[in-house]
Amino acid sequence: MRAAIFNRPGSITVGQRPDAMIVEPTDAVVRVVLACVCGSDLWYYRGDTRFEPGPIGHEFVGIVEDVGADVRIVAKGDLVVAPFAYSDGSCPHCLRGITSACARGGFIPAGNGDGGQGEAVRVPLADGTLVTVPGSGHPDEIMASLVTLTDVMCTGHHAARCARVSTGDTVAVVGDGAVGLCGVLAARRLGAARIVALSRNPARQGVARAFGATDIIEERGADATAAVLELTGGVGVDATLECVGTGQAMKTALSIARPGSMVGYVGLPHGVEFPVRWMFSRNTGVQGGSAPVRAYIPELLDDVLDGRIDPGRVLDLTTDLDGVAEAYAAMDESRAIKALLRVGVV
Amino acid sequence: MRAAIFNRPGSITVGQRPDAMIVEPTDAVVRVVLACVCGSDLWYYRGDTRFEPGPIGHEFVGIVEDVGADVRIVAKGDLVVAPFAYSDGSCPHCLRGITSACARGGFIPAGNGDGGQGEAVRVPLADGTLVTVPGSGHPDEIMASLVTLTDVMCTGHHAARCARVSTGDTVAVVGDGAVGLCGVLAARRLGAARIVALSRNPARQGVARAFGATDIIEERGADATAAVLELTGGVGVDATLECVGTGQAMKTALSIARPGSMVGYVGLPHGVEFPVRWMFSRNTGVQGGSAPVRAYIPELLDDVLDGRIDPGRVLDLTTDLDGVAEAYAAMDESRAIKALLRVGVV
Repeated sequence: MRAAIFNRPGSITVGQRPDAMIVEPTDAVVRVVLACVCGSDLWYYRGDTRFEPGPIGHEFVGIVEDVGADVRIVAKGDLVVAPFAYSDGSCPHCLRGITSACARGGFIPAGNGDGGQGEAVRVPLADGTLVTVPGSGHPDEIMASLVTLTDVMCTGHHAARCARVSTGDTVAVVGDGAVGLCGVLAARRLGAARIVALSRNPARQGVARAFGATDIIEERGADATAAVLELTGGVGVDATLECVGTGQAMKTALSIARPGSMVGYVGLPHGVEFPVRWMFSRNTGVQGGSAPVRAYIPELLDDVLDGRIDPGRVLDLTTDLDGVAEAYAAMDESRAIKALLRVGVV
Repeated sequence: MRAAIFNRPGSITVGQRPDAMIVEPTDAVVRVVLACVCGSDLWYYRGDTRFEPGPIGHEFVGIVEDVGADVRIVAKGDLVVAPFAYSDGSCPHCLRGITSACARGGFIPAGNGDGGQGEAVRVPLADGTLVTVPGSGHPDEIMASLVTLTDVMCTGHHAARCARVSTGDTVAVVGDGAVGLCGVLAARRLGAARIVALSRNPARQGVARAFGATDIIEERGADATAAVLELTGGVGVDATLECVGTGQAMKTALSIARPGSMVGYVGLPHGVEFPVRWMFSRNTGVQGGSAPVRAYIPELLDDVLDGRIDPGRVLDLTTDLDGVAEAYAAMDESRAIKALLRVGVV
């Protein structure tokens, strides 16, 4: 089969790989229909985080092609959403909804196996991991939104949940990548009354507004802080989503969070430090990490299928598997928010 | 009037001070009935935190003796609970329940004025700050519990709230000082099913059990972590209260918090650092700070008056104003959990 291969920072090519196959009786093999390039793939592409040469990608939806002998729930022919982490669905962490901490879980590509940016993927713990999409013949817009449930929409939702967004809140979102934009959408979905998006990119501002942002702040650093404080009468916002992962983004997020509020953070921290005494002086809390995507998919899936949310709008570049190198380059150069790869057909 | 005076680390004496009096029209003067020594007073007593020589103390209940021209709610003769911070009750932070961040607020002793460990105190912003206790002739046990509402009971409750304790939870409390013990009580009150108290002091273990602790862990450091993990089947606890403020206590708290859970922390941080990447890897959140005591008093006051909670049990040494030096010494040497000063009569 064919799959994207990470060769080294800056080099992604399409190559041949052994066909995906069942190894454990709890596995499924999923034939990929749609895949995405993730902002976190860029950490590897840019050489900021080490990644072993080999298959890459962890966001995909597809059709179940084969299942192991112990798979009971997922069935051949199912259209499935595959979370970026696999999980058994039965350990104490999964039962608590923190599937990202599953004792038997791990990340795709599993064991340097198949990546999501390829024609097929072996998915461990298939019954705990994969979510079957009801219905068939879903239009392209719905399919695009479904693939965002593998990571970015659930990650934006996680930021909003960690920030304790609730009805009527004024919310700020730091970061206008796909996750930040999905954070705007998640905040709106959770009832935020006012959503302040920090962005200076007109295309992203447009998506942010479409997703529910009521205010756009173009300033950065201390000027951004001043602008948000001015918007809020000097108080700060009720809930803050930090969707970048840099030290500067966290500083901005903490500086605009009103006393007693939470900053939800979902970008892998690079150079982030928490100012303990300062946070204590304001009762500012923080929570974040890898989103427990599997736990969030069911409720968000319903909203996608019913048309209440359309996170697929973050996918502003569509190509195919052969276009994967250009997809990375376009995201790396901020020419695209997020790239969709049409790998197969339903 | 007479009042305790902090001279220098290790030296507290009783001296003469000008009588407390109205300065601003929003002030009240409260004649102190009961006062306490706080664990945070020991930071000064031990020289760990700088404190200007002068009046000291911020935990007291008493009788309103005089009110300024603009005071409308509090009245002469009222028995009042005085939070350790004063607040106007009307700013955005107060209205949100974060009275500790009141834009016009501050701490007692206000402006190096009267301390709580003295015969009377000028309290700024009296209507926003003081809480009148209904009824009269309250027995000693109730009066002792009332004075804990000025700080430690509300602070323990704050730790539990920041840790998001909810019904059925397994909760761990790090720290067996008065605040930690009140944290046990607060966790029970919020519906915790199992409460693990870390303590190696038999007297404190007894109070912890009386307050609802179901398990006592005597180990410290890595051994404490191992013991709590063993109790919880390797999972960790659902909510963790860190009621000390040292780096070691925070390390222990973070290490026993199950993935996706919160650590509520209320001890003024001394040498605490947050391991960002590690917290991210487990979705462990933290929130804490000075408790918004004023916002919490009404609900806790009802429970004290109705006998549902008896936080006054942490007061295991009773003396009078002349005994204040011994009260500090006894707490410093861990001979007492917390000292009560009988300063006046109702």
